[in-house]
Amino acid sequence: MQSKRYAIIVAGGAGIRMGFDIPKQFIELAGKPILMRTIEVFDGLLNGPEIIIVLPETQIEYWHQLCHKHSFDVKHRLAKGGAERFYSVLNGLSLIDTDNATVAIHDGVRPFVNQSVIEECFETAYEKGSAIPVIQPVESVRLVESSGTVAFPRSKVMLVQTPQVFQYRLIKEAYAQPYNPNFTDDASVVEAMGGRVFTVTGNVENIKITTQTDLVFASALLKSR
Amino acid sequence: MQSKRYAIIVAGGAGIRMGFDIPKQFIELAGKPILMRTIEVFDGLLNGPEIIIVLPETQIEYWHQLCHKHSFDVKHRLAKGGAERFYSVLNGLSLIDTDNATVAIHDGVRPFVNQSVIEECFETAYEKGSAIPVIQPVESVRLVESSGTVAFPRSKVMLVQTPQVFQYRLIKEAYAQPYNPNFTDDASVVEAMGGRVFTVTGNVENIKITTQTDLVFASALLKSR
Repeated sequence: MQSKRYAIIVAGGAGIRMGFDIPKQFIELAGKPILMRTIEVFDGLLNGPEIIIVLPETQIEYWHQLCHKHSFDVKHRLAKGGAERFYSVLNGLSLIDTDNATVAIHDGVRPFVNQSVIEECFETAYEKGSAIPVIQPVESVRLVESSGTVAFPRSKVMLVQTPQVFQYRLIKEAYAQPYNPNFTDDASVVEAMGGRVFTVTGNVENIKITTQTDLVFASALLKSR
Repeated sequence: MQSKRYAIIVAGGAGIRMGFDIPKQFIELAGKPILMRTIEVFDGLLNGPEIIIVLPETQIEYWHQLCHKHSFDVKHRLAKGGAERFYSVLNGLSLIDTDNATVAIHDGVRPFVNQSVIEECFETAYEKGSAIPVIQPVESVRLVESSGTVAFPRSKVMLVQTPQVFQYRLIKEAYAQPYNPNFTDDASVVEAMGGRVFTVTGNVENIKITTQTDLVFASALLKSR
């Protein structure tokens, strides 16, 4: 192995948007919490990463109960979530104990990422420094301008998924910057300090489960497999 | 009624991309072809439009058989599809017999558009000349540039759905232009001659069913209702 692999899986959702009593990462899909399904995708890689889960402090006890209830035995460490996603990732990064590492940062509520996409992101990031999965929108695209909206070529737009994967030295340096509300994802943090971000082709099923409609789609995807 | 309403529903798919034997608009969802479900949404409006269906000439006989089989009795006229979507819409427009009209142009494989969205598009287009439904992407966005891709504010990007609704005089004039491969949707045809395009908020369930994954989502959406 050329560099140690880590996966920081960020599960910060409070679940309020979905109108559920429990945070969305704990909602069960076919009897198993979404977050466990996400972890298992990474754990199932041939060259699997060391797994770090970032959870709000208030949810950690509940997570332990869930692991016990589901006999979930995938080895992982826990980091505490912060007030912003930025701080959550920072806490996850603090658990990495070697500079010679490649780090995937992934949304806990994206259990449908293909393992081949994760593998390609790890390999590309190892070679080039960074790799994020993107897909093209199916819809026509318009840009918002002061006068209204105007048509824009769909082929020039990419929608960004996770995992966003980086050489540890690069992402550590990026996250040494002060927090900025313009940081929308890890790639934007890296770019803010002048780093380059490379893309790989994602898989369309890799949806982020954040609404009731997403949950309907997620259940259907699982059944169709 | 202030102006006559029309809906041109374009169903040109050959179904090849989905790997099915039949065109995607004829695939059954819970026992009923997608195209019939789409038509019924428009027909169910309080102030329902006159309906024009655009179909490839080779599919018209099959469509008649399907209507018979499903006892489908929503009144509609048929126009022949063209080699490009542009020509299909043009053929649909040719069946409109009054200038005082508002015309919705809709994808035959979008059966999940909300009636309230259609109504708002009709009303806005009647007032302002045009209206198309748009939604914001859930994902972070990047733009493709010559040097690679670069982060772009998600809030400045809109994904375009249908129906795209126009005052008939405006859309007729727009479609008098010669065909241009840059015409990606009806709004772009209107803009190419300097027309303004207004937006309304679409509904996220209004997916265009073009892949097997979309079909999985569509079946699930239908069951969840």
